[in-house]
Amino acid sequence: MSNMIEALQQQYARLDHLRPFTGANSATPWLDDLTAKHERKLCAGLEEAVRKSGLQDGMTISFHHAFREGDKVINRVVETLAQMGFKNLTLASSSLMTCNAPLIEHIRNGVITRIYTSGMRGRLADAISHGLMAEPVHIHSHGGRVHLLQSGELKIDVAFLGVPASDEFGNANGTAGTSRCGSLGYAMVDAQYAKTVVLLTESLVPFPNLPASIVQDQVDFVVPVDEVGDPAKISVGAARVTSNPRELLIARRAADVIEHSGYFKHGFSMQTGSGAASTACTRFLEERMQKQGVVARFALGGITGSLVDLHEKGLIETLLDTQCFDANAAASLAKNPQHVEISTNVYANPSAKAACCDQLDVVILSALEIDTQFNVNVITGSDGVMRGASGGHCDVATAANLTIVVAPLIRSRIPTVVRQVTTCVTPGSAIDVLVTDHGIAVNPLRPEVAARLTAAGLSVMSIDELYQRAVALAGEPKAIEFHERIVGVIRYRDGSVIDVVRQVKD
Amino acid sequence: MSNMIEALQQQYARLDHLRPFTGANSATPWLDDLTAKHERKLCAGLEEAVRKSGLQDGMTISFHHAFREGDKVINRVVETLAQMGFKNLTLASSSLMTCNAPLIEHIRNGVITRIYTSGMRGRLADAISHGLMAEPVHIHSHGGRVHLLQSGELKIDVAFLGVPASDEFGNANGTAGTSRCGSLGYAMVDAQYAKTVVLLTESLVPFPNLPASIVQDQVDFVVPVDEVGDPAKISVGAARVTSNPRELLIARRAADVIEHSGYFKHGFSMQTGSGAASTACTRFLEERMQKQGVVARFALGGITGSLVDLHEKGLIETLLDTQCFDANAAASLAKNPQHVEISTNVYANPSAKAACCDQLDVVILSALEIDTQFNVNVITGSDGVMRGASGGHCDVATAANLTIVVAPLIRSRIPTVVRQVTTCVTPGSAIDVLVTDHGIAVNPLRPEVAARLTAAGLSVMSIDELYQRAVALAGEPKAIEFHERIVGVIRYRDGSVIDVVRQVKD
Repeated sequence: MSNMIEALQQQYARLDHLRPFTGANSATPWLDDLTAKHERKLCAGLEEAVRKSGLQDGMTISFHHAFREGDKVINRVVETLAQMGFKNLTLASSSLMTCNAPLIEHIRNGVITRIYTSGMRGRLADAISHGLMAEPVHIHSHGGRVHLLQSGELKIDVAFLGVPASDEFGNANGTAGTSRCGSLGYAMVDAQYAKTVVLLTESLVPFPNLPASIVQDQVDFVVPVDEVGDPAKISVGAARVTSNPRELLIARRAADVIEHSGYFKHGFSMQTGSGAASTACTRFLEERMQKQGVVARFALGGITGSLVDLHEKGLIETLLDTQCFDANAAASLAKNPQHVEISTNVYANPSAKAACCDQLDVVILSALEIDTQFNVNVITGSDGVMRGASGGHCDVATAANLTIVVAPLIRSRIPTVVRQVTTCVTPGSAIDVLVTDHGIAVNPLRPEVAARLTAAGLSVMSIDELYQRAVALAGEPKAIEFHERIVGVIRYRDGSVIDVVRQVKD
Repeated sequence: MSNMIEALQQQYARLDHLRPFTGANSATPWLDDLTAKHERKLCAGLEEAVRKSGLQDGMTISFHHAFREGDKVINRVVETLAQMGFKNLTLASSSLMTCNAPLIEHIRNGVITRIYTSGMRGRLADAISHGLMAEPVHIHSHGGRVHLLQSGELKIDVAFLGVPASDEFGNANGTAGTSRCGSLGYAMVDAQYAKTVVLLTESLVPFPNLPASIVQDQVDFVVPVDEVGDPAKISVGAARVTSNPRELLIARRAADVIEHSGYFKHGFSMQTGSGAASTACTRFLEERMQKQGVVARFALGGITGSLVDLHEKGLIETLLDTQCFDANAAASLAKNPQHVEISTNVYANPSAKAACCDQLDVVILSALEIDTQFNVNVITGSDGVMRGASGGHCDVATAANLTIVVAPLIRSRIPTVVRQVTTCVTPGSAIDVLVTDHGIAVNPLRPEVAARLTAAGLSVMSIDELYQRAVALAGEPKAIEFHERIVGVIRYRDGSVIDVVRQVKD
């Protein structure tokens, strides 16, 4: 055999990298061991997986947030890493929630020293807004997160991905097992980009668990655990269903806007997001679609039971799902062939070879604040404290043909429409229409849309008028007092810095 | 904004890579153009796609062979590249067939100067065996090809992938459109590893063509073409169905071996490949599975109508499909949720984080020659000319728990069982049982299997006895005369050189 290689290399110098065959299983020693063949990825516990993962101080760990407020993986893994003595880790979670308050302790102790996330809420967000961390948190959009991974700024060393069900090889999904979150659209990206992927699975099911959202060739270790999340808490917070009359008014008005915008045609596409009013809007759209025989080609993004309902009634052909917002959506993903799971890369990464959001006609988005330039804040509250998430907001806002922001004019006696947003997450040039309980405003960049709405009898005002009305009703809000120190960097979807968040004065 | 960045960078030196926001669509200019938004990947013709792809002399182009003898992409693209004046290209096709004879001219003219392929047949193979190329062809297995891509030896600059149906974003599959090849398991790997991916699609279907085998975030350009392949020719050649009594005898005997091997249990798994006898064996297994209440967990690899039949009868739970061998298989992939498409990476790459073949119990493989050390030749004929393919042979042979080779003892008056194979593709240590029309031989490495077969009343001989019988019937074959010059390098699945093919003397 060596002679043969020599002859080959004498003949062709460029083949000098070739080496001779040394045995059928030289490169695959586990094939000589009937147990290893099946169990080489299985770990008895999380600590074993961490040790095998090669995680070291200073590295980057990642998580997904498909279980939202029901997540039982992030806190548990960080707690374990703290116990194991790790320090100076970068935490890259697709988002963080109220449930992640226990991370405060691990930030104080130096276990976590940098954070990339789409958003944060509750005690954790409050502490960070008040200066908990030495380095500012990077707030990215869902598409922007993948851009940061693709550009190399964010390099995941070890992804810890909680999944409802996996087989011994790591074929995993969110539609089998007991605690079903449905789409694993966030996690799919971590599985693709992380150097090492550790799955924490609630159910260990027989091979082959296919079709899989996360596929065996992306997975290094599989750890069976007792629980990864509580699906009942997915719809807590942002993703709730409303019976609030003001929200219902806004939702109905948003449906009016869609109907008369010029985009409400057979084969149109839409995204309604997780806000209460925008979710409700789906229901108001239904009657108009039925009446006018309009069928949507697809709905995109976070999928709710109301969208599933329209899909099953034949009013939406395809659901493109990065995140199931409730149990009905998760059940639909398991059974409806045209309810398709997509990664956040395919959903909204501006640097991807294509992003589904570029195909969107209409999107309904929410806002904590919107200013008279239509700039939107979805991250800081009226007290300057972080309490929201960038999410897919700026991704779909700029990509969709018609971007509608829905918001009450006044929240808890504080205007939503302001002269200048506290924090800009989505630039005003990407917003076309604002729908409030006090009226509709159209971005002057879109006069044709304003004309269509007016022609349909909808009362369109200028956003300045809405601002004046808000001030007349609630007074000019007092300026928030900030320190100079920057605690958050708002990254636009292309990685650029669109704003910063400064430390709140107590 | 610049002030803000300066403040940020003064505060945190490590953030000096950050740049300010410069506009909602700075990184995504196509979003400002309603046509570009939809059509930025679409090319009017192949030449436009080639120009846009950045292809240059000396680069590597790749193809898949899902249409086998019906392929209409490889010759056409190479012809176009020749007309455009390209030279010195490396051709990396997952395999080459009889239909690729027109490539001879482009090799003579220096358009193609290096080839990586799983195999070759017909006039092309004959010409290469007789010294057509200055550099030897690399023959790899299906899993080994992905290993070469992963290791970086094989770097695809531009993949030209023919697909039955794609949307404008490049979401493509083999189950929509007119000319359906079914699984795109080979192409999925090129889509993953190529720097630039050009789809040639026979049907341009509305977005979103999901679920897709090749996904939009992998695709650079989409070229609508009149035809990509003739599915009727997929089962020509290797993948045919037999009525030959000798092949049926071998097939029945192979089913006997499986039944009594110790691996025929509820939940077992199998691969039967595309050989005539091995395909027939599937049918003989059916009655035994019915009678004994045995249901297979999965069947793997190339999927035939006979395997689909068993799946639809509930005798095989899941089909894991890298290549549909006939129209029934393609139709099943479109409709049966547990008929799942897998890439050759997931199928058999020894360097993948997991390969499905590692889960295999029983595989039936074919052979052009097998020697008394059980080494198998599936590439060169008895005249020393290349006429076959490595395929998944060595991948599954070493991975499966029971590897059965089926072959007639004598073909066209020339023994199949020989003292030493002309070319070794799969090492004998990976082969457990040989089934011929003259008897069964078990590798001495597997005495427990021999014992089980003997106990079941099957007549087991030594492979030397089979060899002696072959020589007695057909005479010792005359040694083939070769030049010293090497025309082919046989790469084992891990990239090592297991053998070489020398130039045949005329």
